[in-house]
Parts: sequence; C-alpha cells; structure tokens
Amino acid sequence: MFTHNKKLQYTVRVSEPNPVLASLMLEQFGGPQGELAAAMRYFTQAIAEDDPGRRDMLFDIATEELSHLEIIGSIVSMLNKGAKGQLAEATQSEAELYRSVTQGADSHTQAILYGGGAALTNSSGVPWTAAYIDTIGEPTADLRSNIAAEARAKIVYERLINVTDDAGIKEALGFLMTREIAHQISFEKALYAIQPNFPPGKMPGMPQFSHLYVNTSQGPTDHRGPWNTGENWQRMDDVLGGIPLDGGDGAASVDLGSSQSEDLANYAARTKSNPGSDPVTGADLGSSGGAEARHSPAE
Amino acid sequence: MFTHNKKLQYTVRVSEPNPVLASLMLEQFGGPQGELAAAMRYFTQAIAEDDPGRRDMLFDIATEELSHLEIIGSIVSMLNKGAKGQLAEATQSEAELYRSVTQGADSHTQAILYGGGAALTNSSGVPWTAAYIDTIGEPTADLRSNIAAEARAKIVYERLINVTDDAGIKEALGFLMTREIAHQISFEKALYAIQPNFPPGKMPGMPQFSHLYVNTSQGPTDHRGPWNTGENWQRMDDVLGGIPLDGGDGAASVDLGSSQSEDLANYAARTKSNPGSDPVTGADLGSSGGAEARHSPAE
Amino acid sequence: MFTHNKKLQYTVRVSEPNPVLASLMLEQFGGPQGELAAAMRYFTQAIAEDDPGRRDMLFDIATEELSHLEIIGSIVSMLNKGAKGQLAEATQSEAELYRSVTQGADSHTQAILYGGGAALTNSSGVPWTAAYIDTIGEPTADLRSNIAAEARAKIVYERLINVTDDAGIKEALGFLMTREIAHQISFEKALYAIQPNFPPGKMPGMPQFSHLYVNTSQGPTDHRGPWNTGENWQRMDDVLGGIPLDGGDGAASVDLGSSQSEDLANYAARTKSNPGSDPVTGADLGSSGGAEARHSPAE
Amino acid sequence: MFTHNKKLQYTVRVSEPNPVLASLMLEQFGGPQGELAAAMRYFTQAIAEDDPGRRDMLFDIATEELSHLEIIGSIVSMLNKGAKGQLAEATQSEAELYRSVTQGADSHTQAILYGGGAALTNSSGVPWTAAYIDTIGEPTADLRSNIAAEARAKIVYERLINVTDDAGIKEALGFLMTREIAHQISFEKALYAIQPNFPPGKMPGMPQFSHLYVNTSQGPTDHRGPWNTGENWQRMDDVLGGIPLDGGDGAASVDLGSSQSEDLANYAARTKSNPGSDPVTGADLGSSGGAEARHSPAE
Amino acid sequence: MFTHNKKLQYTVRVSEPNPVLASLMLEQFGGPQGELAAAMRYFTQAIAEDDPGRRDMLFDIATEELSHLEIIGSIVSMLNKGAKGQLAEATQSEAELYRSVTQGADSHTQAILYGGGAALTNSSGVPWTAAYIDTIGEPTADLRSNIAAEARAKIVYERLINVTDDAGIKEALGFLMTREIAHQISFEKALYAIQPNFPPGKMPGMPQFSHLYVNTSQGPTDHRGPWNTGENWQRMDDVLGGIPLDGGDGAASVDLGSSQSEDLANYAARTKSNPGSDPVTGADLGSSGGAEARHSPAE
Amino acid sequence: MFTHNKKLQYTVRVSEPNPVLASLMLEQFGGPQGELAAAMRYFTQAIAEDDPGRRDMLFDIATEELSHLEIIGSIVSMLNKGAKGQLAEATQSEAELYRSVTQGADSHTQAILYGGGAALTNSSGVPWTAAYIDTIGEPTADLRSNIAAEARAKIVYERLINVTDDAGIKEALGFLMTREIAHQISFEKALYAIQPNFPPGKMPGMPQFSHLYVNTSQGPTDHRGPWNTGENWQRMDDVLGGIPLDGGDGAASVDLGSSQSEDLANYAARTKSNPGSDPVTGADLGSSGGAEARHSPAE
Repeated sequence: MFTHNKKLQYTVRVSEPNPVLASLMLEQFGGPQGELAAAMRYFTQAIAEDDPGRRDMLFDIATEELSHLEIIGSIVSMLNKGAKGQLAEATQSEAELYRSVTQGADSHTQAILYGGGAALTNSSGVPWTAAYIDTIGEPTADLRSNIAAEARAKIVYERLINVTDDAGIKEALGFLMTREIAHQISFEKALYAIQPNFPPGKMPGMPQFSHLYVNTSQGPTDHRGPWNTGENWQRMDDVLGGIPLDGGDGAASVDLGSSQSEDLANYAARTKSNPGSDPVTGADLGSSGGAEARHSPAE
Repeated sequence: MFTHNKKLQYTVRVSEPNPVLASLMLEQFGGPQGELAAAMRYFTQAIAEDDPGRRDMLFDIATEELSHLEIIGSIVSMLNKGAKGQLAEATQSEAELYRSVTQGADSHTQAILYGGGAALTNSSGVPWTAAYIDTIGEPTADLRSNIAAEARAKIVYERLINVTDDAGIKEALGFLMTREIAHQISFEKALYAIQPNFPPGKMPGMPQFSHLYVNTSQGPTDHRGPWNTGENWQRMDDVLGGIPLDGGDGAASVDLGSSQSEDLANYAARTKSNPGSDPVTGADLGSSGGAEARHSPAE
Repeated sequence: MFTHNKKLQYTVRVSEPNPVLASLMLEQFGGPQGELAAAMRYFTQAIAEDDPGRRDMLFDIATEELSHLEIIGSIVSMLNKGAKGQLAEATQSEAELYRSVTQGADSHTQAILYGGGAALTNSSGVPWTAAYIDTIGEPTADLRSNIAAEARAKIVYERLINVTDDAGIKEALGFLMTREIAHQISFEKALYAIQPNFPPGKMPGMPQFSHLYVNTSQGPTDHRGPWNTGENWQRMDDVLGGIPLDGGDGAASVDLGSSQSEDLANYAARTKSNPGSDPVTGADLGSSGGAEARHSPAE
Repeated sequence: MFTHNKKLQYTVRVSEPNPVLASLMLEQFGGPQGELAAAMRYFTQAIAEDDPGRRDMLFDIATEELSHLEIIGSIVSMLNKGAKGQLAEATQSEAELYRSVTQGADSHTQAILYGGGAALTNSSGVPWTAAYIDTIGEPTADLRSNIAAEARAKIVYERLINVTDDAGIKEALGFLMTREIAHQISFEKALYAIQPNFPPGKMPGMPQFSHLYVNTSQGPTDHRGPWNTGENWQRMDDVLGGIPLDGGDGAASVDLGSSQSEDLANYAARTKSNPGSDPVTGADLGSSGGAEARHSPAE
Repeated sequence: MFTHNKKLQYTVRVSEPNPVLASLMLEQFGGPQGELAAAMRYFTQAIAEDDPGRRDMLFDIATEELSHLEIIGSIVSMLNKGAKGQLAEATQSEAELYRSVTQGADSHTQAILYGGGAALTNSSGVPWTAAYIDTIGEPTADLRSNIAAEARAKIVYERLINVTDDAGIKEALGFLMTREIAHQISFEKALYAIQPNFPPGKMPGMPQFSHLYVNTSQGPTDHRGPWNTGENWQRMDDVLGGIPLDGGDGAASVDLGSSQSEDLANYAARTKSNPGSDPVTGADLGSSGGAEARHSPAE
Repeated sequence: MFTHNKKLQYTVRVSEPNPVLASLMLEQFGGPQGELAAAMRYFTQAIAEDDPGRRDMLFDIATEELSHLEIIGSIVSMLNKGAKGQLAEATQSEAELYRSVTQGADSHTQAILYGGGAALTNSSGVPWTAAYIDTIGEPTADLRSNIAAEARAKIVYERLINVTDDAGIKEALGFLMTREIAHQISFEKALYAIQPNFPPGKMPGMPQFSHLYVNTSQGPTDHRGPWNTGENWQRMDDVLGGIPLDGGDGAASVDLGSSQSEDLANYAARTKSNPGSDPVTGADLGSSGGAEARHSPAE
C-alpha cells in the first residue's frame, strides 16, 4: 500500500511563469520516456515478480518514480500558474489573452484544454498510453528494458536542461536526471546477478543462425566493425540473389481441405485481374483530353 | 532504396489452417515486440545516423526485419487461408460459418474485419502504433533500447513456439527467434564500441545522488543485493519522515506578477470549498434514507 | 513524495488460477473506470490545486487509489500465476498449452504478450490511455467528473462480483467497491462546499436559452418528465420547420479579403461538379453488362 | 431516423479568417469535451435505454448536440476559409504561404493535412477517440457522467469565449455554452427522478468501509472539511504503520496445483537474481573509469 | 440542424439474444468501415464544401448514415438485451453468469464494460478513432475516398450476413449493404461530374515519372498486366544495381552553418562506435560460457 | 525478402536546416497519407493475395513506397541536422537554444523528443497508427482504397510543395508526387481488369434500394445533379414524416426468454425515472438562489 507526504522529494523553485516551457516539460510528465511510464513499467513488474529481491527493488524504484512524477508535474503547474488565473478570470482583454494563449507551440493545449494543470500528455499534446510500457514478464528481458528506459530518460532530461536558463528548474531536472543514472546501475546489477542471462529465456536458438550477419544493405558506405566482423561472426554478403537461408524454395504453403480449396479457387476465379485486358479506367474517364480518348478503347 | 525478391528469407510450411493460432501469431506481426516495430525502430535510427558504421548496421538489420515481417505475415496468411475463401464464398451454412468465426479468441477479427489477411494488430486486435518505437536519436540510449527490444522479441517467439505443435511453424519461428539473438549481439558490440557510454549523454549528474538507493518500499520483504548494497552504494532507509533530499522545504513555488497573483486570488476565492460548511449533497438527495430530507427544500 | 509498504491495503486470497477471469479483472486495472484512471484523475487535480483542503483530499484519495491498483493487480497476478510458469517452462505438451492459452476470450493476451503479469489494458486488451482522464482544472467541473467516475467504478465492481464465485476475490472486490462509495461522498461534500457551484464557471449564460428544452426527437414515444416540463421549462416542440433559434438566416459566413476570395473562386471553378452532366463512371465500367451500357450516356 | 435542415440552429457570423483561432475552436469539435463526444455519449445511451422517458430525453439532446457539432464545425470552416483557397491555388509566393502556415501553434495541421476543413481532432491535432465516451449502460452512473460532461463543456466554452474578440464567434459560443447549462439541468432532473439513486447500483457495500476516510497523504498541509470530518465520518489517520484494513496479513495468495507449483519453482530458480553476487555489468564496462577493467576479461 | 424520429429507417426484428453475435455486429457500429466512420467522413466534408450540389449530397448521405448507425446499434442492443438484465440483477448463480460472459470471443466486453449497450468499438473492442476518417478537403480525392469506403462497407456487411442465420438481422443488414451500393453510385457520379479529375489537384507531375513502372520486386512470380505493360508504360526492370532515378548520386545532403557543423562533428566524435575495437559486452558477461571471464575485473 | 542499397531512389539536396519545415514534412513520413501508410497498405495486401499478377504489382509498389519513406525521412533528417548537434552539445546559451526550439509550431517535438531524427508521427506529433490502413482483403474494395490513397497522397505533396521555396526539396517532393500518379494508374488498371467489379463482392443487393436517393437534408440549398437525378434514380423527398423504408413500424425488437424478461423488468423498475416527480437536484443545491433552501434539510 502507498502513503504520501505533501513535501516533494526535491524542492521546486520556478523563477517565473512560462506556459511554452511548461509544454516542453510535459515530455517527462506524460511522454513516453517520462515518469509515469517509468513508475508503471516497474510497478507492473513488481506486482507479478516472485523473486523477493527484485520485487523489493522494483517497488522501491516504482515508488520513487511516482515522487518524480509529482516533481515534474509541480514544475509544469508552477510554469502555468499565471495562465491559470488569467484564463479563468478573464480580466485581460481578449486580444491579450489570445496572444498569450497562441504565442508558442502548443501552449494553448495547456490553457484551453487543461486549464493550467499538468496534463498526462507529451510535449505535443498526445495522451499517455500504456503502449509505452514494454513489460513482458520475463526478468532478463524486462531488466534490459528498464536499463534502456533509464538511458532514454537521462538523455531527455539533459535536453530539457539545455533549453532553459531558470536555475531552479535546472537544479530539479538535474536531480531527476541523476536518479536515472542510479536506477540504471541498480537494474544492471540485478540483471547480471542472474546467471546466465544471455540469450534471454530458455531456448538456445539454431546455432547456424545465431552468429550470422546478413549484409542486406549494399552500397558505397558498407562498413565493418565488431558488430559484423571477427572470429565469432559468419557473414553473408551475397544477398541480391534471393537465396532463402534454409536452402528451401522460399515459398509459403499450407495444406487445405478440399472444400476450402474449392472455395478459394472460386474466389480466385471471381476476382481474377485479367492480365491480357486493356480496360478503360476512371483515370481515363477523368483525364483532360480523356473524354474523347475514353471511348476509343472499347471500339 | 529497397528491392524485394518474392522468395521468403526462410521457407514457411504450415500443416493446416487455424485462425485462432493465426491470431496469436499476429503478436509478432503487428504487436509491440513484433517485426514491424523492429524494422521501424532501426530504420528511423538509420536515416538520422551520421556514424557510417552504425548507419550501415542499422540499415542491414532494419532491412532483414522487413523480411521477417514478411515471414510472420506469411504464416498468418497461411493459417487464415481456409477462412478466407469460406467467408467470401459462403458455401457453408451460416451456422457453420458462425461457429468457425466465433470458435476462439479474437479469430473473428481476422475473418470479419481483415478478410483472412494479416492485419497490423497485436493478438488482441489492437492496431500497431508508433508509440511502440522508442528511438530518441542518441546512440548510447538507442542501442540499449535495441538490445532490450531484441531480448523481448526473443522471449515472445519462445512463447509462441511453446503453444503450437505444427512442425513447420515451429521451425520458422525458431529461425526468427535465433535472429533476435544475433541482432542483440551486434547491437551490444556497437554500444560498447562507444567509449565511454555510461552514463549516457554528456552530463555527469549530481554526485551525491548517482549512487544513492532510496528504500521507499518498506515492509516484511525488504531485501538486499548488489543493486542496493555494497561499497559504492549509499542507502537511505528512513523515508517515512518525509524529508526532501535537497534539505529544502519540499514545496513548489513560482514568482507571479501582481496582476497574475490577483487573478489567481480571485479565482481561489470564487472556487473555495468552505471547510466549515456541512452541505446537503446529491448523495443525500438520492439516498433511500434521504427521501424525507429531500422534500423539505421545496417547501 | 510517496512511500510504499509491501502489505496490501486489503488481503487477497484467490482460490485457484483462472486466466480468463484474470482478463475480466483487468477492466479495473487498466480499463477506463479502473484504478489507474482514478489515481491519475485525482493526482493531476491535486498537483494543480490551490485550495488547501481540496488539495489534501485529492492527494489522500489519489494515494489510496494507487493502493487499490495494487490490490486489483495482485488479484490478476494470482489468477495468472499458474499460466506464468507453464508458459515459460513448457513442460506441458504444446497441444495442452495451446488449449489453455486459447480456451477463453482474450486470455492469450495475458499468456503470450504479458507473460502472466498484470497489463495496463482493459478486459479487451486495449492499452490504458490518458484520454480516459477528464480533468480540466476547474473544481466545480472536476469534482462532478470525480463523482461520476466513482459511480461508474462502483457499477463495474458490482458486475465483476456478479461473475465470480471465488469468495476471496468477491471479498476484495467488495472492499474496493465500497471505497468508491466513500470517495463519492467526499467529492460531493467538497463540491457543495463551494457556493455557488451552478452553473459551473463565471459566465451566467444567455437567459433565453438556459431553460429551453428543444424537442428534436419526434415520434410515437415522445415523453414528459421533470427534465423537460414544469414551471421553469420553456419547450420548443416545432423543430421540423428548421427555424434557427436566434431568428437569423441560419447561415455561416466570413468576410474574406479580395485576394482570398479570388483564390477561393478559382478553386471552386476548378473543382465544380457539373450538375447538368451525365458522366460515365467507374461503376458503369465495372458493372456486369455495363460494358455496353457505359457508352450510351455519352452519346 | 435522422433528418437535416441546411440552416444552422444558430447563425454564425465570423468577422475574418484566422487559422490559429480555428485550431483552438477544434477543441469543441473533435476534442474530449466537444460536441461529437456529447452527441455520441447520449446517442449510445439512448439506443440501449429501456425507460421511455429517459430514452426520449437522450435522443432529444443527442440530436441537438449534432446540430451543435455543425455550428462549431462551421465556425472552424469559416476561420479556415481563406487558407483553403490559398493553399490549393498557390498564387502567393511559397515564402508567404509558408509564413501563414507556420505562424501559429498547430495551424499547419489544418492547412496541410485537412485542407482547410474542420478535422475531428482536438486543438493539439489529436484524433477524436471513443475512449472519451464513458457510457456504461447504468442510468444512475451514466446520468452523473452526463452532468459532469456538461459542466466540463460549459467551462471549455467559457475559456474559448475569453480568447477571442470576434463578436459573431463570441455570440455563437455563448449560445452553445448556455445550452450545456440547460442540458445539465435536464440530466440532473432525470437522475433525481430515480429514487433511490445512491449508492448507484444494487449492492449496498460493506458498512465498515463506506464512511471511512483514510488520511493517506500526510504532511504540513493536512486539512479538514465536510469531506473527511463530521458525525458520519470515521477517520483513519495512522497510515504509516502499514496495517491492512481487513486485519489480515496484507499478502496476495493463490492455491496452485502441484504441476503448476513445480513449473513456477523451476522458473524462479532459473531466473533468480543472486543477492550475494557482485557482478560486473554493462555500466562498469562503459564507464570511463571502467576502461581498464573492461580489457582484462578478454585476456 | 438535425432532427430525429424515433422510428428506425428500417425495422429491426431479432429472433433471440446472442452477445457473441452482438460483438461481431459492432464492426459496423464502431469499426473502421462502420456507420459512424461513414457519417463523420461525409459530414466533415459537407461543412467545409463550397460547391452547393456536392454540399447537399454530402449532407443527405451523412444524415442517412446516422440513421444507419442507429439501425446497427439497435441490432447490437437487441442482441445484448438478455445479458443486460442478467448482469445487473444477478439472479443467476455467479457460475452461470460467468459462463455466459466468457462463452465467446469478446462478449465479455459488452457485458462487463458497457453493460449491454452498443459501444463505439470494433468487434475486437478497439475504440473508434477519427484516424479512420480520411477526409483531406479536396473533392477529387475525397470523393475517391468515399467510393472506396462504400466498397469496403459493402463487403463487411456481406461477411456479417454470411455468419448469421437470423432472418431479421439478415434482412436489415441486406438493406444497409444495399444502401452502400447506392451511395457509391452517387459519389462516382459526383466525381466524374468534375472535369478533369485526373490527376487530382492542380500540378501535372514530372512527365518522365508519371508512366514509369519500377519492377522492384523480383523473382519467380514476376507478372505482366495492363498495370505495368502496354504502350503508355515505360518499365524499369533493372533495380538491383541501385541506380537513382534522377541520375544523381542518391545521397541526402544539407548545407550547415559552421557553428552547426562544429557541434555535429563534436557530437559524432563523442558518440563514435570504434570499428577497430573488440569490446567485451553484456552478452559476454551474461553468457554461460562467460562466467569465468566476468569475475576477473573484480579482482 | 528485402534488400537495400544506401543510395536513395532520388537524390535529396536541402539548402539549409529548418526544423519547422521538417515538422510539416513529417506529414508524409508518419502521417495518414504518408509513405509508411502506403507501404503497409500494399504490403499487407500483397502477402495475402493469391492472384499472381496483383501480388507481383502489390509487392512492386509496396517496396517502392519503402524507398519513398526513406526519401522523405532523409529530407526531415537533413532539415533537423542543425538542431541535432546543437541540442546534444549545448554550446549555445540556453536562451538561444530555447528560442530555436520554440520558434515554430511543433518543432520542439523533433528537438526534445526525437533528438533531431525523423519520427513516425504526423505534422502534429501524433504517432502513426495502423488504424490508417484500410486493407480488408477483398481486391475490388482494396484496389479502390489504393486509388483513393494515391489521390490523397498526391494532394498532400502538392500542398507541401506550395509551402517551401527550397528548390531541392521541391524537386524531390515533385518526384514523390508524380509517383503517386503512376501508382494510381496501375491500381485502376488492375481494378478494371477484374470484370465485373461493381457492386463489389458477391451479393447483388436489394433492387428496390440500390438506386434510391433519400433526400434527408432539406432546406434552401437543395440541389440536383447526376448523383441524385436521372432515369436510373428513384428519389425520396418526403423524409420529415418518419416513414420507415420497409413499410414496417420502425421499431427494434427481440424475443427474450421469460427469465431474461423478468430480470429486465426488475432492472427497469429499479432504475425508473419517475416522470411525475419534481425532485430537488444538485443544480438546485448549488445555485446562488438555492443557498437558503440548501440549509433547511440539515436542520
């Protein structure tokens, strides 16, 4: 069960309202690399986890991410605080209010739709979706997903720090960015404390294909590196010939019963495009100068 | 530019139609861990990448994933081949067709909506969305995302192999699963060929918070492991007191101009919930015991 | 900031695994009336709220809803616990596992995609979206939204209780259902402690239209009740004549500059559908027996 | 069945084109509180409703909302009328057209994607989704949802009125805003004409929890009001101890069969994170200080 | 403005409740080819249309589609009528109700979430989205979209007719299917009454590429037909050589200022993947064979 | 299977970076009429197609659309190239970077979220969704969908050409626009090479309704044209009387079993809105004039 304390985990001091900057900050509130995504990724893993150590860690970090969601949401809320009253009380002239609402990218989303609150959208106004959550319930995959998610979140915070010179915001974002580093370390330790963890899962794979590099993209900038060259790699460079890797005919087939085959054959006959025809078409009918032309083919 | 050969990269031999199994297979066609997501993740990274080696690798693997999309789509198409003709030609009785359409989870989606084709949905019928793509345009983050994505895809293939005994499908899925292993190796080599790569990005973070573990989840199953204990970790176990980590007051604040402050104060006054009131409410009016009370105001 | 205790707010005792029932329970985990929606609705209101009493209440209830999300997620997780190991270890025959995966509506979503965990989807597998959150940042509207949301959640719990005879689940659901009642009472008290709260907002509206009932739907089952009849209501029953309510001509107009008018006129001329024509069309070309027919109109 | 008259229910006179203002107006065309959402909310309730009076009312109001959708769409269309011809005929220089397209937030969405028409998106360009519709088929819940929806729509109209000084638009919006007031009154009358209506549904709830207020959010701004204090309320202030409300152990449990237990145990053993290990991880390999360490394993 | 009559445009007589069939029917209520999509496609075109004839036609057909939405919704509602009362009153045993709720694909969606009403989802439970609407505000494109949409809707009705033997439903669906034919004819007449209409729009295109067929897909089943062969077609069969069609070098380039170039070069240097390295990676650390290697760094 | 060559199908020369223009260009990268939608529409048709000629054509065009996706994505990437380095290296002052990020509509989406890459979103930042794909697996419908899709894409390219004066971009867009013309011709030829193709599918429809025009929209601008007038059309102008087209009573009915009827009756009784009541409601309680009334119940 959860409890809450009205103090933030990190104090937020915003120097002045700025609804456009608020929109940018939403990226980490309701965006794909944001704090709700982080909290829900780890929370959904935690409640299904049977390993007591990982379960504890996942609850610890999920809970902290909720506190971070509160911090970034509070930044957004402070940045919108001026617009909130103006929009509701309308003591400005409409023209002034219109200018402030439309002065920057997407700030109107905050003002009109959410009334100055922090919305669970990204910086373009797209609502948060659980499609961002890549939990699949297998720890060696999920921990890798968590490691990657922390890396992405770290970078997005870095970018947000780069676009503001408000010292209080920079400091709070710097804190949030740093915590992503700490969490990435924890998730890596938990992953490598599972031995073995590669390949993930139980099945070893077909050995003839697990160290094969298929050079499907040809052309002037073909390059080599440890990702495709070395003693463990087998390379396949001749791909233009269209040779299936299994040595088969590369076709897809299924055995149908006779009734199903008959239905399919009837359907094919009914919907056949006759390759020997030269039909007049809509494009012919609709082309300029096509009015005359269109009658000729049928003659 | 792309070219195509009508031979599949791996031959697909399906033993008999099965639209319910087709629905399950869609998970890797139009689902979050599926082949379109893989192809588009690497393709969007490739076209923006300036490093020639990574660019080459990303195009190689993106292109191969398109070939894998074609393989899994061909499996789905073969599994639905019987239903395709039956639904269009309707030579069965309606009752039989109804039974085949509704016999299993979501198979009707294939039959009714997509006419026996392979739809870009997951196994529940949810349309594919680019919200699955976590490319952010920074290589040390994106490569970690790719590593995690390959791990997830590997596991989902393993699960699909576990639910069918069709030998041809198992073999093709085994091939696809194995390729995820190979791709994960390539992405790891490319990541660690960047030095340093941790923390990702350019900013080092605030040192006092980068190795701190906050034990936010209390209770009987508190555990220790390398993810929260050891010489590099500082732990914070006392979290119930609500102490902000920065030593501040944990409040959020913003400096408003006087006009904005006035608007906000007016708004607050107008919408204040009076804590000393004891209002009659809708619940009172609508409760069974509230029938008497509710008539008096009209008197 | 948030903290967590690994004890649930209410003990969950599930009698036996049942992945189909787990799918139904997801409705209140990641569905529109579920606990994440509740928690996020109140949380987004709380962080933007300036009224100290409402802010406190909103944080109290938001936090409790997170504990409820944990309870319903734990129920789902317990119901899927059997499938989790079977799918990963695959000691069953594939045929048996296939049957268990496909035996009921949407249970495969759990098994294949989420590996036995609790997914942030509704019972049809649709990912949770912040489009469910109707917070708009005005308390007399938001509190009404909260009242309605609690009513809906109460009903969905009632339905879920009706479809299971697992005593432990029924008890936990009964608890969750009851809390919705308590929360509805709190939100109503907070709403009516704002005076006046109707109409919501600051503008009174145009008096000639605020108590007018327009009887737009005609027909045999026209009915009267306090919602359209009584001393405060003015009724408009004659709607078939198409009379605009403002007494104007019912047209939409805009004043364009001359350059814009000219562009628009050119565009209209270029794309005019000639009402006096009788063109041959694609349907004519493609109709059986239409090959001949299609020439005649042009003659 | 529906019929239509080309006169609008309210005359729309727009003073001049303004594609940025058009974007803002879309909020009530294809946004969550907009007229399509209203029409569809009541329409879906109407067709499933068995109570003749409510069914009549729901059809009346649903139909009127369609007329309002037409009014707001006509405002958008008039505001975009200038851009429509310019974009299609391109008699401006490209530089001028580019400036007009990009001059304000999201106006390009109208110009490029929708060609000057009214799109079923909100003001940020997010497509309308039926996830906005909260109909659940129970009248005491649905009517509360309707009351809340009318309150929200009223407020959004108020905000839109505040950001324009076009007299014709202000008047039409004032009409639409006023009708939301009237509809809210109707829905309230219909709700309270059901007796009893609280709690919604058939089940009374567990009496020990229906008037309990759990003070989960602690801290300096704890407050009291009629929503948590008074003769009907029982309060629970001690939440930091983590005591489950049912007096149980707060654990989640399920009885598994022996085969399922064995699979799960095997899975747990295979994926255990060893708490006593101190593994080298990717972060170590990728840290700048880790360069030396990283080479040794390869020796 | 719209008006409504409570008589349906076509009488609906359903022989018996069937919630699974109801789910299938939802495809044409809230699915991509369904009646709401049709109504909104034509309505959004109508309100922005300046041509009086097309505007009239679009309003006529949009309005009729709303009546069809009501018909298909009424079919769904009748098919769910039995479940509606059972779920609310719960006079069955829970076990019986559970069986009826879970007996078929997705029927539980109706029962649990929508309480027996007609939901604006497709047959898989996916909420309707305005992403289905392809209106772009240019009549020769939009009319082609309408023609295609009517064709698709006609086919989906055909499939639904094929899966039921309820005579009343078959008759109503037959009516709805037939109206799609009539609408397709109207839209085709309106399109070809614009002359010329091909190519759509104002720009003629580059003549060297408008009749070129690029044979990008090679292999055993290469075929010829009027779509790629004939006097008007130029064919390009040699695609494996990777020759850009413009005769250029096929590269993408942009001129950057010096400061931007420098930033980009710094970024590239910082994130270069060294092709000559052979780094130890996470996969090495986590492989079973890697257990030994992994311990040495810690020494 | 697919292969790739790093040369683009058409050379891209961008004159200078412009992230706002990049956002507009995204419309054809990840927007509804864009190249991914085109590629996936034809690809999903190709893999399920049994007609060898159409299958070949669909693979040819699908593959070419992937090359076009690469071209438009490369344009976006070049336009963002300056921002990419600036955002990552942050050698500008924050204030300058903020201005460049927020200077135009939605450019911040590129900068913050995608780091200067090409995102699979439309120009408003909405992620691509497979809901854009209207493939239904019947060739006479799908080919019409393809024809319409090419027409829409042609128009959107025309609009994009109109808003830029960058010669290199105009040329590349002109190429892409022209290829849509060529593809439309191919799809039309393939459609009309199926005879007959109208009405689509197998069922002829009810003859009394297939050439009936229902004039549902009345009013001053009623018009006639070949879409509703002529020898083949029967018109129905009297729609205000509410006469069902089948001559029936226009009601919806279903036969319920007695137990179901009883449940439904009980439910109706329990939830009846009493038309003869005049209840006090929330609006009354919350109105300013209602202040007095509201206190009396508590006395």
